[in-house]
Amino acid sequence: MQNIGKKIWAIAEGYIPADDASKARQFVSHETACILNAGAEDAHVEITVYFHDRDPAGPYRVTVGAQRTHHLRFNDLKDPEKIPADTDFSSVFISDQPIVVQHTRLDSRRSDIALLSTMAYPIS
Amino acid sequence: MQNIGKKIWAIAEGYIPADDASKARQFVSHETACILNAGAEDAHVEITVYFHDRDPAGPYRVTVGAQRTHHLRFNDLKDPEKIPADTDFSSVFISDQPIVVQHTRLDSRRSDIALLSTMAYPIS
Amino acid sequence: MQNIGKKIWAIAEGYIPADDASKARQFVSHETACILNAGAEDAHVEITVYFHDRDPAGPYRVTVGAQRTHHLRFNDLKDPEKIPADTDFSSVFISDQPIVVQHTRLDSRRSDIALLSTMAYPIS
Amino acid sequence: MQNIGKKIWAIAEGYIPADDASKARQFVSHETACILNAGAEDAHVEITVYFHDRDPAGPYRVTVGAQRTHHLRFNDLKDPEKIPADTDFSSVFISDQPIVVQHTRLDSRRSDIALLSTMAYPIS
Repeated sequence: MQNIGKKIWAIAEGYIPADDASKARQFVSHETACILNAGAEDAHVEITVYFHDRDPAGPYRVTVGAQRTHHLRFNDLKDPEKIPADTDFSSVFISDQPIVVQHTRLDSRRSDIALLSTMAYPIS
Repeated sequence: MQNIGKKIWAIAEGYIPADDASKARQFVSHETACILNAGAEDAHVEITVYFHDRDPAGPYRVTVGAQRTHHLRFNDLKDPEKIPADTDFSSVFISDQPIVVQHTRLDSRRSDIALLSTMAYPIS
Repeated sequence: MQNIGKKIWAIAEGYIPADDASKARQFVSHETACILNAGAEDAHVEITVYFHDRDPAGPYRVTVGAQRTHHLRFNDLKDPEKIPADTDFSSVFISDQPIVVQHTRLDSRRSDIALLSTMAYPIS
Repeated sequence: MQNIGKKIWAIAEGYIPADDASKARQFVSHETACILNAGAEDAHVEITVYFHDRDPAGPYRVTVGAQRTHHLRFNDLKDPEKIPADTDFSSVFISDQPIVVQHTRLDSRRSDIALLSTMAYPIS
């Protein structure tokens, strides 16, 4: 099969709503990057996070196995540092294999949930 | 008319919220791929579903008639296997005719509904 | 300025939720195509609507003035026929000038509102 | 690193819901353009806003620092004029450096919040 995706992706939107972490995990507000690696080799992905008024954080490193998907919650990133809640950010993904990246947020600060999603922007 | 769309599409996000199937069908939480075939020939589409920790499922096969649209609910896919609820997945669509694919989810686990939608990523 | 946009666009998703038309107009559930014409000439746009189990409807014709935007509600289309509620559809836009098309739905069938939006798919 | 993004972007959708400005800032309904400048030079961005029945407004000018992100609320734009609430608009962004632009709205006119997001359309 031909290559599915690109190696560099950007998400201009990023925001982790501050929420009650004692909720069930699927209802805690979260910001997610869904990464599909449909290829035959594991993909090693480096993520850099950009802020409004400080230098970028990262790189964060994740591996997405061959023919696997990884729905990465920015809330879970800890190394080299946690991403603060209630703070605007953007992110850039650089992979050694073609991947497809989609951005999704679930916001459940209020009684109901709100969702957004958009394909990330493919650079090359 | 010229070709409308591409033959290969990817959706990195996929998640069927577990919900009460006794609700009216339009309010049951669902994950949908809307497939437009604006061309003069029927489109035969093969869908492969990728998971986090197991091998891919599929191919699932659907036919979208010439000049027709098909709003496919992943909840309804049964052959070769059902897609489990509350499980992260991604999907790749391969068609023998140009199509346009858009991803939409309605989430009604709580009292109100939440919606997301994004165009799938066109590969070629 | 260079051309802003493309002349052919497709939206694979389409669905007008059946709702109470006596609500204030901004809260009635609606399906919208936002059309930007940033150019110096009026854009004449023909819209064809595709269904699951019948032949396409249209063309519907709208004009978007030079340097104007038109947020077109599919609910308002009447000529050559109304688009039924609670029915899946897709749409293709063909313009004589470059335009940018974005798809948005507001769903207020329940007590709160839900929103989705995605850029339409540019064909050429 | 190679260029991340494009210099001209368009958002066909634009709408600032009229809301109670006395709410906490993160819950006031707002329309946002998230602008990522991952490059080594500050990006100077000019924004033109298009309406349905009057000439465009602007240009509005914002600077996004090198390796910074700016989540611009249309609600906050004041110079040369405020953008009216409850009014349809579109926007075009022209930058002297490559940027990535994503469109997000939070609508909290009713008791809960609704979200939409989509990558803007890259022109060149």
